[in-house]
Amino acid sequence: MSSSQSNGSSAPKGLTKDNINPAVLEVSYAVRGELALKADKYAHQLADGEGSDLPFDRVVTANIGNPQQKGLDQRPITFWRQVISLLEYPALMEEHIELAKKMYPEDAIARAKSLHEEIGSVGAYTHSKGILGIRKRIAKYIEERDGYAADPESIFLTAGASAGVSLLMGVALQKGDGVMIPIPQYPLYTATLAYLSATPLPYYLDESGGWSMSLDSLKKTISDARGSNTPTKALVIINPGNPTGGCLAEDSMRDVVQLCYDEGILLMADEVYQANIFEPESKPFVSFKKVVRSMSKEVAEGTQLVSFHSISKGTSGECGRRGGYFELTNMREEVVEQIYKMASIMLCPPVTGQVGVDLLVAPPKKGDPSYELWHTETSTTLANLKSRSQLMSDRFNALPGMSCQPADGAMYLFPQIEMPQRALDEAKKRGKQPDVMYTLDLLDATGICAVAGSGFGQAPDSYHIRVTALCPGTEEYIGKIEQFHKDFMSKYQ
Amino acid sequence: MSSSQSNGSSAPKGLTKDNINPAVLEVSYAVRGELALKADKYAHQLADGEGSDLPFDRVVTANIGNPQQKGLDQRPITFWRQVISLLEYPALMEEHIELAKKMYPEDAIARAKSLHEEIGSVGAYTHSKGILGIRKRIAKYIEERDGYAADPESIFLTAGASAGVSLLMGVALQKGDGVMIPIPQYPLYTATLAYLSATPLPYYLDESGGWSMSLDSLKKTISDARGSNTPTKALVIINPGNPTGGCLAEDSMRDVVQLCYDEGILLMADEVYQANIFEPESKPFVSFKKVVRSMSKEVAEGTQLVSFHSISKGTSGECGRRGGYFELTNMREEVVEQIYKMASIMLCPPVTGQVGVDLLVAPPKKGDPSYELWHTETSTTLANLKSRSQLMSDRFNALPGMSCQPADGAMYLFPQIEMPQRALDEAKKRGKQPDVMYTLDLLDATGICAVAGSGFGQAPDSYHIRVTALCPGTEEYIGKIEQFHKDFMSKYQ
Repeated sequence: MSSSQSNGSSAPKGLTKDNINPAVLEVSYAVRGELALKADKYAHQLADGEGSDLPFDRVVTANIGNPQQKGLDQRPITFWRQVISLLEYPALMEEHIELAKKMYPEDAIARAKSLHEEIGSVGAYTHSKGILGIRKRIAKYIEERDGYAADPESIFLTAGASAGVSLLMGVALQKGDGVMIPIPQYPLYTATLAYLSATPLPYYLDESGGWSMSLDSLKKTISDARGSNTPTKALVIINPGNPTGGCLAEDSMRDVVQLCYDEGILLMADEVYQANIFEPESKPFVSFKKVVRSMSKEVAEGTQLVSFHSISKGTSGECGRRGGYFELTNMREEVVEQIYKMASIMLCPPVTGQVGVDLLVAPPKKGDPSYELWHTETSTTLANLKSRSQLMSDRFNALPGMSCQPADGAMYLFPQIEMPQRALDEAKKRGKQPDVMYTLDLLDATGICAVAGSGFGQAPDSYHIRVTALCPGTEEYIGKIEQFHKDFMSKYQ
Repeated sequence: MSSSQSNGSSAPKGLTKDNINPAVLEVSYAVRGELALKADKYAHQLADGEGSDLPFDRVVTANIGNPQQKGLDQRPITFWRQVISLLEYPALMEEHIELAKKMYPEDAIARAKSLHEEIGSVGAYTHSKGILGIRKRIAKYIEERDGYAADPESIFLTAGASAGVSLLMGVALQKGDGVMIPIPQYPLYTATLAYLSATPLPYYLDESGGWSMSLDSLKKTISDARGSNTPTKALVIINPGNPTGGCLAEDSMRDVVQLCYDEGILLMADEVYQANIFEPESKPFVSFKKVVRSMSKEVAEGTQLVSFHSISKGTSGECGRRGGYFELTNMREEVVEQIYKMASIMLCPPVTGQVGVDLLVAPPKKGDPSYELWHTETSTTLANLKSRSQLMSDRFNALPGMSCQPADGAMYLFPQIEMPQRALDEAKKRGKQPDVMYTLDLLDATGICAVAGSGFGQAPDSYHIRVTALCPGTEEYIGKIEQFHKDFMSKYQ
């Protein structure tokens, strides 16, 4: 007679899908779903020599913005890695300094020494907001970028922008609060809102207008929410856009800020692609912090803003290090304290991620021994991204049944597929979204991973895929997509 | 006429304490609270040369288990840092290999090369569960530790144990679910439960019995919860204990496992101090995984367990790197999938944190060039911890009005203070918990930071402080606590 019987229940069941957090079941996250699992399987088959019946000899991961991934050609920035390797093994700056000088440029050693003095061991916890000296240098970087002051105490270092978004939303949102999110959006946002039982309030970006945002569409979203008694608590904007690649014009940003001020809405600006700008003269990146501060005194001091940045994108692409920061603007101290408390439970962001942020905001200067190499590396990365992006959108636009807005920045393209009716029917038969079917078939035929537009959201009855502009061998890669797409269209037309 | 007026509200307010997530307001987290802020202030004063009126010349941080912190004497393990510095700057293994060979032992280079081949750049995202090869080596380590098989697919690498606990509880718990937590406990648990609106169900550890746990006390907690219609979903055990330093006996663990099986309760075993064991012969660490697997078939295969481990503690103390893992035992695949989905939103744990776990589970072997140094470093760290811990508990026990259970492991002591009535009155007058007052006064008088027992929970009308056994200059440090304590007692007696 076991006590499970004595207490009246049947066999002990523990955790099941039916008794865990129901909000978790509501979360969907497309970037690493069925397609990624299938791609993993193919990659393992090929690695084990068992993929001889596959119609491709390698899996091309165009689904994730992971610049330093194996098979892609973005190298880490040498200066970053030199400084961090010295910090990891300070003996290189001490007993081995003479040998180290033969391998490390002077400025890398000097930078590592000064960081080492400031931080101590990179294996120790830091302040939960991040190392104060690094927060001060971030503030200086923001000031130089925007021309307006920044306060180190309003800056929190994070384990990448995603951790920052999750922390911020976790503090800011009550169950049922509405948060405006762009469609298409990066699925972190819908996933986090679902987990918090908050309500996504979609607003549509205008594809034919280069994925621009319209004030009318934002206002309509707010008024619809008001109609259903959902308070609009925050507005998420991704600029430059993911997956769209669109870069907002300053006028449009001013309208948005005014709206947030008028409505008392927190503006959440995801600006992780701020360094991935293809036409800095005609389509520059302007930060929301700068726009807020440039408005009337009332708006400049009354609009609540949180801006996210990251070392995962830009020209560094240090995703695996998990580093980033957010800056709070016009946030009440009582709320900052709550954010700090929650940050402190997770102790601190990874220290070499924090160092990465330091290297991002304070790169080598002209005249420094490492400047030329740093400049060549970062400008090559950016130039590659730009030329691939342009080539891809040109070629996609030349295909029947595909159209693609050229990107102003970021690292993705989000072409639209005009699905033939017979493809829609086939998808229905297979129980898949049409764009999901397209990406699965693309993977099966070519080994290329793309993400279906439905994972990001898209206008009703429109179908897209997101591909990165990170893949080397662009010609071959585009050629395979072209061939697949033509076959797909002729199969279903 | 602004639209904020036109929509009927007064000045836009945005986020305030009254409209953010109310669960966040319920969270308390004592380890880095008022005391830590005050200590920060003193440290800055001293650094700026403005602390000449303070009765101490440095702040001693005995409040956080942060072994590599400045001012403490635990050095990073050389082999770890060598391998990681090579991975950070692979040029050391390529064009600079001849010079590198003069600074790095052969086995560090070999290990870094093999990890580099497996992982690629440490700046790239990995699988969201962590690098498969590392998960396989963790499984092997667990098998060798316990004598029972482990499955790499049931292992998730995490950004430290805290991130793992937060992920796991976030998936497992519904609002209102009860979770048994030891009193005293590490405040991560109460903080996480408050954030999730779950219900902590305290069970008291028996101080006079060396902080042991009693089956009766556990059963009473479950039956009380049942009486108030709170379902008991999980049981948290910290072994070796934080803050208590107690190490559970295997018999007692078997009772707990049987109870969890009988009641269908998830057992959450925080085993981050498993390598910090002072008497491995008489009080060895035994993992809950081993205990579960050693029970009857029914229990061995029917008890759900999650075990957490970390690189932050042990002899590595690599807190700032944020690395750890958890292993799921007997978890249903449908639940594992949900955990994986939520892990994937945060992309991946920091890669060099994952490498740290690899170095933890697969250290240099006897005969390897790095073995002797590794062995000396790790055994010195452990010996220091043990001798300091013993000296501290002996000396604390010799003080009037203080008693201290000697620790079997971990890195803390949790002495009890017999508060004189006049101290209780004074605390009331100051609006502080008596033990909080004690730690604030200790800081003011000596510069030593300790955490008040109320941050961890303690039996009613008992008062404790938690101090780490990490501080060098133990004699001087204990001497200061002794002097303060005597003064405190005579002041209030």
